[in-house]
Amino acid sequence: MNAHWPGLKQQMEQQGIQTLLITDPKHVYYLTGFLSNPHERFLGILFQPGSEPVLVVPALDEEAARAATGSMEIITHLDTDNPYHLLQKRLQGSVGTLGLEKENLTIARFEQLQKALGFTTTHDVGPWLRDLRVRKTADEVEKMSHAVRLIEQVLQESLKQVKEGVSENELVAEVEYQIRKLGADGPSFDSMVLSGEKTALPHGVPGERKLRRGDLLMFDIGVYASGYASDITRTFAFGELSEEQVRIYETVLAANEAAIAAISPGVTFASIDKAARDVIEAAGYGPYFIHRLGHGLGIDVHEFPSVHGQNEYLLSEGNVFTVEPGIYVPGVGGVRIEDDCLVTENGVRVLTSFPKQLTYL
Amino acid sequence: MNAHWPGLKQQMEQQGIQTLLITDPKHVYYLTGFLSNPHERFLGILFQPGSEPVLVVPALDEEAARAATGSMEIITHLDTDNPYHLLQKRLQGSVGTLGLEKENLTIARFEQLQKALGFTTTHDVGPWLRDLRVRKTADEVEKMSHAVRLIEQVLQESLKQVKEGVSENELVAEVEYQIRKLGADGPSFDSMVLSGEKTALPHGVPGERKLRRGDLLMFDIGVYASGYASDITRTFAFGELSEEQVRIYETVLAANEAAIAAISPGVTFASIDKAARDVIEAAGYGPYFIHRLGHGLGIDVHEFPSVHGQNEYLLSEGNVFTVEPGIYVPGVGGVRIEDDCLVTENGVRVLTSFPKQLTYL
Repeated sequence: MNAHWPGLKQQMEQQGIQTLLITDPKHVYYLTGFLSNPHERFLGILFQPGSEPVLVVPALDEEAARAATGSMEIITHLDTDNPYHLLQKRLQGSVGTLGLEKENLTIARFEQLQKALGFTTTHDVGPWLRDLRVRKTADEVEKMSHAVRLIEQVLQESLKQVKEGVSENELVAEVEYQIRKLGADGPSFDSMVLSGEKTALPHGVPGERKLRRGDLLMFDIGVYASGYASDITRTFAFGELSEEQVRIYETVLAANEAAIAAISPGVTFASIDKAARDVIEAAGYGPYFIHRLGHGLGIDVHEFPSVHGQNEYLLSEGNVFTVEPGIYVPGVGGVRIEDDCLVTENGVRVLTSFPKQLTYL
Repeated sequence: MNAHWPGLKQQMEQQGIQTLLITDPKHVYYLTGFLSNPHERFLGILFQPGSEPVLVVPALDEEAARAATGSMEIITHLDTDNPYHLLQKRLQGSVGTLGLEKENLTIARFEQLQKALGFTTTHDVGPWLRDLRVRKTADEVEKMSHAVRLIEQVLQESLKQVKEGVSENELVAEVEYQIRKLGADGPSFDSMVLSGEKTALPHGVPGERKLRRGDLLMFDIGVYASGYASDITRTFAFGELSEEQVRIYETVLAANEAAIAAISPGVTFASIDKAARDVIEAAGYGPYFIHRLGHGLGIDVHEFPSVHGQNEYLLSEGNVFTVEPGIYVPGVGGVRIEDDCLVTENGVRVLTSFPKQLTYL
């Protein structure tokens, strides 16, 4: 039984919850060590404090689930089974108040669950899992550091393919080849390589555009390794840049560093966002920094908390999140510099270590 | 305005729905041509028949959304905005009965929407979109055929790297390199290459296992191209196989062909599953075919309908789905052969054309 169950049991008792159902695949991984993407199939953990937690998995994941979870009880369902009926049959006594995850369950599933289990009261337990996951353990930090080391190697290797005329797609191919070759589980999101005017699209899609002298070149890439994500952005100069492009770069770098310097347990996430935004606004680029500063990072590449100007949640030791200010000026180009940061007892440890000074390729 | 809106408007009138909110990113693509992954950010289309549909997108997607949708009205939200309040402000008159997608909206979002919009009655419109998307147009079939051609080229190229001692991960790296090099948008799911005893895991994860003589070697791979998915599985012999492995292969191939031969408008999806399952059961491998026969394919790599033994839905012209019987015998190995099939006016057109006879590499 995973170390988190006694604490969950205690919270259930305090909140008057008789039955707990965990359905987010990432929460399931966190609690059982079994990582999977069930697609549209049902995956979940049913827990009633009177008995051991039971894992409900699609039949075709049974072997993998057993290998990952050891002695945990597993119930499997075929594509023709109704998994909600299987849950109902496994219940000990009445369901009582059901603890569930409102951010994960769709209305459709909720209605099917309600039909099968017949509960009348629910309690959102998503915040419990969120609060557990937001403070990474030493083991989790080690896994994340490994994911960071891998993506930095990928970036280093991929830069060797940068030359005039290479396309964004070719560089993405190289990035993903290196991701696999170095043994990561895979990209943690769609690998992004943008060049020239396309760097001004913060969510641009890599394409056939070919690299030219004078281009900004942006890599926003990450991997999953042992189920944990890394996420890094670096922007390079390919040949000479214009004065304005250099000014944008230096502003973003200063904003990145100001935000990192502001990280410390007990301050708000809003204040970290503000530290970066102030630098960018002072340089006159405020309207071109059109996204939050960053996001929590862990089993999900985007997880709690969101690092933005309205988030008054306090930083605490073990939080890991990205710091990724950017400036995007249509017609001129965009720069983003992103690091993965761990809040320590007294300040910050930046997990990413790839050089940040403006580099001419 | 997309060709589908008048039909949706009519359905709204018939069902007494005053306001429609579409939130599945794939439905948004289907209706607007704007394809994106908003992650945890809000993306949606608000439609009230008295005015034009409006697209609500994260601010950082504005430029891409404008490029994709032309003259459609777009509302953007920053990470610090409450998108539900923006929806509320944009409403013309009262919300009335709200049409929404129960399979896409989480309970958390539903509650936020309810707070902002104050509706009291809802209607699930997911099935409307599902029924639209299940019949592919000629343009969609062309995009899917292109995605199939790309993945077949990827497979052809990747086979060149098959040699003794190559690892599953190295072959996955090659597959994904080719996917990018050939200009696909990316893999349509986690590329799977399994070898030897691991082929008996229908959802196995590629790893460092190295290819040895006498192995079965399975590729289950696909790409997205222009927003549409392909999905193919082929299993090869690397060196000599055992008699049982050959028998398994021939049984799966016969099951695949029996299912394809059964495809015709007006029959049930259950009957297609049964055509394959009968072949496998007759050969004595029934208990080792532990998943459904296939799944709908289109903008989503797994979409409606599910091809399993309980699905009494009738095939109709324009349906595209996978046929992928498999036999997985622990200690012996597994074989799966998967094709993408289009229901035509009189029968079937198999979009995949990669050879299926047992091939010794």
